[in-house]
Amino acid sequence: MMKRYSFMDDYSEGAHPKILKALQDNNFQQQLGYGNDDFCLKAANLIRQTIAAPGADVHFVSGGTQANLLVISASLRPYEAVIAVKTAHIAVHETGAIEFTGHKIIELDTADGKLTPDIIKPTLIEHCDEHMVVPKMVYISNSTEMGTIYTKKDLEELHRFCLENDLLLYMDGARLAASLVAREQDLAFEDIKDLVDVLYIGGTKNGALLGEAIVIFNEKLKIKFRYSMKQKGALLAKGRIFGIQFAELFRGNMYLDIASHTDKMAGKLAEGIRNSGYEFLAEPQTNILLPIFPRNIITKLKQKFLFHEWRNIDSDNVCIRLVTSWATEEKHIDNLIAII
Amino acid sequence: MMKRYSFMDDYSEGAHPKILKALQDNNFQQQLGYGNDDFCLKAANLIRQTIAAPGADVHFVSGGTQANLLVISASLRPYEAVIAVKTAHIAVHETGAIEFTGHKIIELDTADGKLTPDIIKPTLIEHCDEHMVVPKMVYISNSTEMGTIYTKKDLEELHRFCLENDLLLYMDGARLAASLVAREQDLAFEDIKDLVDVLYIGGTKNGALLGEAIVIFNEKLKIKFRYSMKQKGALLAKGRIFGIQFAELFRGNMYLDIASHTDKMAGKLAEGIRNSGYEFLAEPQTNILLPIFPRNIITKLKQKFLFHEWRNIDSDNVCIRLVTSWATEEKHIDNLIAII
Amino acid sequence: MMKRYSFMDDYSEGAHPKILKALQDNNFQQQLGYGNDDFCLKAANLIRQTIAAPGADVHFVSGGTQANLLVISASLRPYEAVIAVKTAHIAVHETGAIEFTGHKIIELDTADGKLTPDIIKPTLIEHCDEHMVVPKMVYISNSTEMGTIYTKKDLEELHRFCLENDLLLYMDGARLAASLVAREQDLAFEDIKDLVDVLYIGGTKNGALLGEAIVIFNEKLKIKFRYSMKQKGALLAKGRIFGIQFAELFRGNMYLDIASHTDKMAGKLAEGIRNSGYEFLAEPQTNILLPIFPRNIITKLKQKFLFHEWRNIDSDNVCIRLVTSWATEEKHIDNLIAII
Amino acid sequence: MMKRYSFMDDYSEGAHPKILKALQDNNFQQQLGYGNDDFCLKAANLIRQTIAAPGADVHFVSGGTQANLLVISASLRPYEAVIAVKTAHIAVHETGAIEFTGHKIIELDTADGKLTPDIIKPTLIEHCDEHMVVPKMVYISNSTEMGTIYTKKDLEELHRFCLENDLLLYMDGARLAASLVAREQDLAFEDIKDLVDVLYIGGTKNGALLGEAIVIFNEKLKIKFRYSMKQKGALLAKGRIFGIQFAELFRGNMYLDIASHTDKMAGKLAEGIRNSGYEFLAEPQTNILLPIFPRNIITKLKQKFLFHEWRNIDSDNVCIRLVTSWATEEKHIDNLIAII
Repeated sequence: MMKRYSFMDDYSEGAHPKILKALQDNNFQQQLGYGNDDFCLKAANLIRQTIAAPGADVHFVSGGTQANLLVISASLRPYEAVIAVKTAHIAVHETGAIEFTGHKIIELDTADGKLTPDIIKPTLIEHCDEHMVVPKMVYISNSTEMGTIYTKKDLEELHRFCLENDLLLYMDGARLAASLVAREQDLAFEDIKDLVDVLYIGGTKNGALLGEAIVIFNEKLKIKFRYSMKQKGALLAKGRIFGIQFAELFRGNMYLDIASHTDKMAGKLAEGIRNSGYEFLAEPQTNILLPIFPRNIITKLKQKFLFHEWRNIDSDNVCIRLVTSWATEEKHIDNLIAII
Repeated sequence: MMKRYSFMDDYSEGAHPKILKALQDNNFQQQLGYGNDDFCLKAANLIRQTIAAPGADVHFVSGGTQANLLVISASLRPYEAVIAVKTAHIAVHETGAIEFTGHKIIELDTADGKLTPDIIKPTLIEHCDEHMVVPKMVYISNSTEMGTIYTKKDLEELHRFCLENDLLLYMDGARLAASLVAREQDLAFEDIKDLVDVLYIGGTKNGALLGEAIVIFNEKLKIKFRYSMKQKGALLAKGRIFGIQFAELFRGNMYLDIASHTDKMAGKLAEGIRNSGYEFLAEPQTNILLPIFPRNIITKLKQKFLFHEWRNIDSDNVCIRLVTSWATEEKHIDNLIAII
Repeated sequence: MMKRYSFMDDYSEGAHPKILKALQDNNFQQQLGYGNDDFCLKAANLIRQTIAAPGADVHFVSGGTQANLLVISASLRPYEAVIAVKTAHIAVHETGAIEFTGHKIIELDTADGKLTPDIIKPTLIEHCDEHMVVPKMVYISNSTEMGTIYTKKDLEELHRFCLENDLLLYMDGARLAASLVAREQDLAFEDIKDLVDVLYIGGTKNGALLGEAIVIFNEKLKIKFRYSMKQKGALLAKGRIFGIQFAELFRGNMYLDIASHTDKMAGKLAEGIRNSGYEFLAEPQTNILLPIFPRNIITKLKQKFLFHEWRNIDSDNVCIRLVTSWATEEKHIDNLIAII
Repeated sequence: MMKRYSFMDDYSEGAHPKILKALQDNNFQQQLGYGNDDFCLKAANLIRQTIAAPGADVHFVSGGTQANLLVISASLRPYEAVIAVKTAHIAVHETGAIEFTGHKIIELDTADGKLTPDIIKPTLIEHCDEHMVVPKMVYISNSTEMGTIYTKKDLEELHRFCLENDLLLYMDGARLAASLVAREQDLAFEDIKDLVDVLYIGGTKNGALLGEAIVIFNEKLKIKFRYSMKQKGALLAKGRIFGIQFAELFRGNMYLDIASHTDKMAGKLAEGIRNSGYEFLAEPQTNILLPIFPRNIITKLKQKFLFHEWRNIDSDNVCIRLVTSWATEEKHIDNLIAII
């Protein structure tokens, strides 16, 4: 057990209590294996209703890297590549998982962790013949690794651009909930179905024990997807563990309610930091904050809290990463602000 | 919920109640992610104690196919192949997961689902130059897909043969518990460390919600294994879910106690079937039974039970597969025997 | 230089003299790289004419293993598998090249090296769900590794079966020439276009220095094939080396004329062996002979000739492999027959 | 045949006449297949002598992309990555060949196409745990894609850095000859053995019809390399085609003599361009020139010559790529200079 309070990530605690209760309540029901159980069917239906996409395919897998390697590998031909920002999870923090499935990631520079048509265009022009890979999919995270969000307009522009250029658009929604409830966000669950080809809705970082829901809108990408899942070791025998959890998360408004708490805590923390006179590497929009502190402040914070150091800004200042979650208690926010 | 009682597999129910309780009890403790939590450390220690292998590396992953593709891919050079029986899980039921990681499976014929030195020898002689793959690893399941077991002597012979021929020996223990408590088994947990290079101990099929424990004895195979895990999408953010479960399973004798019930139920079922005058495709030794019934019996059984049809024997008789589990209730065994 | 005359294979000498002359005659012409040269265009046209397939795509690569891994990898989705006989080149003698590209080879037993619908059928029935690979392509060699041939009828039956079962049919024609001129063959160059999806026409084993011509009939398999070639290292900068050679081979009847000599030499050799009272493992049809000799004969032969020992038949007799080529001189046939 | 004279590349013509003659002279000798012929043995010995590395392993393959994917794939574990400049051939112009074998390329910015310890250092610091790939190999081209060279000092610094950081150093020598004879070069053939782990010496771009010689100094990388070659389709049946060519190139000083002509032609061209008042994107050092011309000059040049447009500099000026070769005739240099 940790002695210091952790703002390292949004997965330091277990699961939302309702989820644990549901696991218990249904424990002795016999069910079919590998995601063919009643709970998975029900959870998939609830997700389809929530996102207003009755024709979408929904599959559950255990983690984000698995979702990413699975979706990208299942969507691309061997010579096709995926475009992402240089700070993307698939580019930096998946130990070459995408490359292991045979595909190049074309990594593009960006200030705020977001891709735009203007950033992508030159890549399409450069990749002109068979000596180069074919850029075929655009990978975005919403919210991003820097805590920023794609608004409805951002996504519409990207979607239009992808359509015009025969590109697939894939949204990594590990932190989709935190994005959708962000104060400056106008994108809603039901908008997404028309704007991306495939999406995954994060469970692990929004109150589940584990699990991500891959949602496929594009008919071509639906074909034999379960074969890909099995081949990559993503089809769990007791798939019920996903079904039970996501049925809880998507019954009523629980999925977004959880995130509202998360973002509220982050908002309070951001306000406190700003009021204390400190700045951020990226504008705080969701539950990932990138404040810049002098080293002496960081030394003090380290005595009480756990967090990642993100980047050295200069010899005196460091950007750290603070993350709130469904389980963050307000008193720790107050404590942290009091220290700075 | 199923209307008929299922003997389809050993993963139709959720988890052993003690496991669910432990998940609940520790839910709000903050922990490090990705298997660095206290629970995983504790569970790994308990496993090392149980198998008397203090120097073994223990890693937890979510399922058997993932364990297999991970271990085999991490152990072999690209031109090296794994030897398995034709009915092996990796050969038949993993949708080419091993081949997707780039490795050939050399599939050998066997009557009872088991490999022996004599079965393997000709393969080593045939693979003699650079136009052929290098057979480098031997994959066995204990218990096998046919419910048979490797005894201590079986394993010692195979181990010696592998040593002499520079082969790695990998035991898929998805159903290791059912094997270890089998009536005719003399192999014990503490024997295994000296007889194989790497092993996975199954959780999913012995009372866990999900999870398998990969145990590495061979020093060379330990190197940077977590990198392989991350790359294959096997490193879960909330690794605690494995730690908590396996700490329960390996506290005291629970892991084997669960399996004792499983095998006892299977034993009673086997006895009933045999007393009714029917035979088996393979000698019943663990919790997988392969009885051969006339079609009219099968029609009757189908009205009350769920199970797999395994193989057509002739125009009148079919071999079916009946599997018991930690959750099998004795009354359903009685019902089934009553019908035949 | 070898002291003994070699019947080991059909690639022990260099190239047909006309090919070397053509390389010399065109040496200083500047040409575009990577197969966009005039010679490749011309050679492709000559091949299209010869096989009466004006719409076929033709690509040149340096060897058979490269052709096979390229065609199979470009044709299949990751979870799809290729069906072949157990003695197939891709199954035995390509060091897992196909598996390295991620695909399983389903290996089937056969007496004469040939696949038939009856041999394939059970495989299609068994592979019924997402836990197993999808059998999608049938790989055959014509002539086979055992020197046997697919006749027109054989191929028509296989083609019809593949069509009915949504299978692609791929013919490895490393030794296509030797098959087409075989005495018992009724299949002609112009028949093939309607019977397979993709084919490669062997150069290396029929008088070229190197080079195989991949011919694609199926529109879907044509898409971006040059991207796959480049990715697998198969696009040579001086592609002209293929164009010049194949333009020679397919100007007039040279490609089949070369093979006629090859098969004639084999026929004479086979007749001599049979007249001496010896039998064959497979009926001699092309330029690969599998005679069975007592060990003392083999000892004698070894003093004068080089060849492969193919298989031990019993304690006294061994099957050896004798191969003739475009360069085989008749006097060595006479010498060999004289010895036995 | 081209109507305009080509400065597009160094592989527009066939082979050096002596090579064609050697192919002819040895055509009817019977030889073992797959690189076990006398010519390959002899050529390997000549190369070992030339580079003063009697213990090096030498293997011949048909092209540069194949050499690269083969060497990198054979050297790395799945989670290991290769470091290269952003303009590297493997990063841009191999259609994701390296990624197809499963490995990430870490692409670094550089002005002149060259890597230095300072450029690499931050990458080693960033890649600190199992969520990221392990940087394990440094890939350099000498000469580079921009025509620049690694001098002896450059290479010694890089070598020392790699040793200190447990990195393998791989030199792509597609244009090694043009580098070694460059006016400002002090690196010699016999220096290389102590400075890199593995190297390929280019044939295709220095007078051969096809072929590159992979030279392995590091004992660990030698292991079972022929297995990797076969698996990747790189082992040609008539390996003699490589042996005969490289035996010619490395008999006497022919390999460097050819390149001396190449570089001399480039030097004259560079001087003429500079005297006409134009500048270069990178300092001309070998046979690749990157002059910057106003658009009207380019329009004129296009009427008489073929070349690649490399990059738009601004609205008025474009950088083009001019390449000379063993076959470049001086009169065309004069013509080009006359036009500008």
